[in-house]
Amino acid sequence: MSGIANTPQPPYYAVIFTSLRTDGDDSGYEAMAKKMVVLASQQPGFLGMESAREDTGITVSYWQDLEAIKAWKANSAHQVAQEKGREKWYATFKLRIAKVERDYGL
Amino acid sequence: MSGIANTPQPPYYAVIFTSLRTDGDDSGYEAMAKKMVVLASQQPGFLGMESAREDTGITVSYWQDLEAIKAWKANSAHQVAQEKGREKWYATFKLRIAKVERDYGL
Repeated sequence: MSGIANTPQPPYYAVIFTSLRTDGDDSGYEAMAKKMVVLASQQPGFLGMESAREDTGITVSYWQDLEAIKAWKANSAHQVAQEKGREKWYATFKLRIAKVERDYGL
Repeated sequence: MSGIANTPQPPYYAVIFTSLRTDGDDSGYEAMAKKMVVLASQQPGFLGMESAREDTGITVSYWQDLEAIKAWKANSAHQVAQEKGREKWYATFKLRIAKVERDYGL
């Protein structure tokens, strides 16, 4: 899923996930990341996702409301991924939950 | 400015700028982007910035409040950059203004 998310009129929520990877296990990480994109996009209230990585990786996912974010965080397959992320794949990360109040574009 | 922004306790604001570049004028674009990072970081209420580009580029800047964002948007040198961005550098973009309500990290 690349490009710019086709989100509805605000308000809605953004989860901004910024991370630095550890070295190694790229294939395990990439496979899990792809699985999680597919799984996230099937969740109720999912509105879209944008992602890019150089050294820093930024993934922004968009959600209808806080309940949708909470349910996705609690998803059991996602919890396995979160655990591996904390233990193995991320040197550090920060996750921010933000309410999108307005937007505009070109 | 790379890595993860060292933002204060929420609430504060995020400006999520997602873009696709046109082809060409990479040197002009890169030079302007660097200038704008330096200039943004000197603005009142600036809290940090995170950036990554593959095909999709994502830059998230963090601000103390909406007034700080408004002042940065109106900055004259930044307005020149915005104009060139619309005319020349971006095939498309979307800018979202969001209030960060909570965060956590590793």
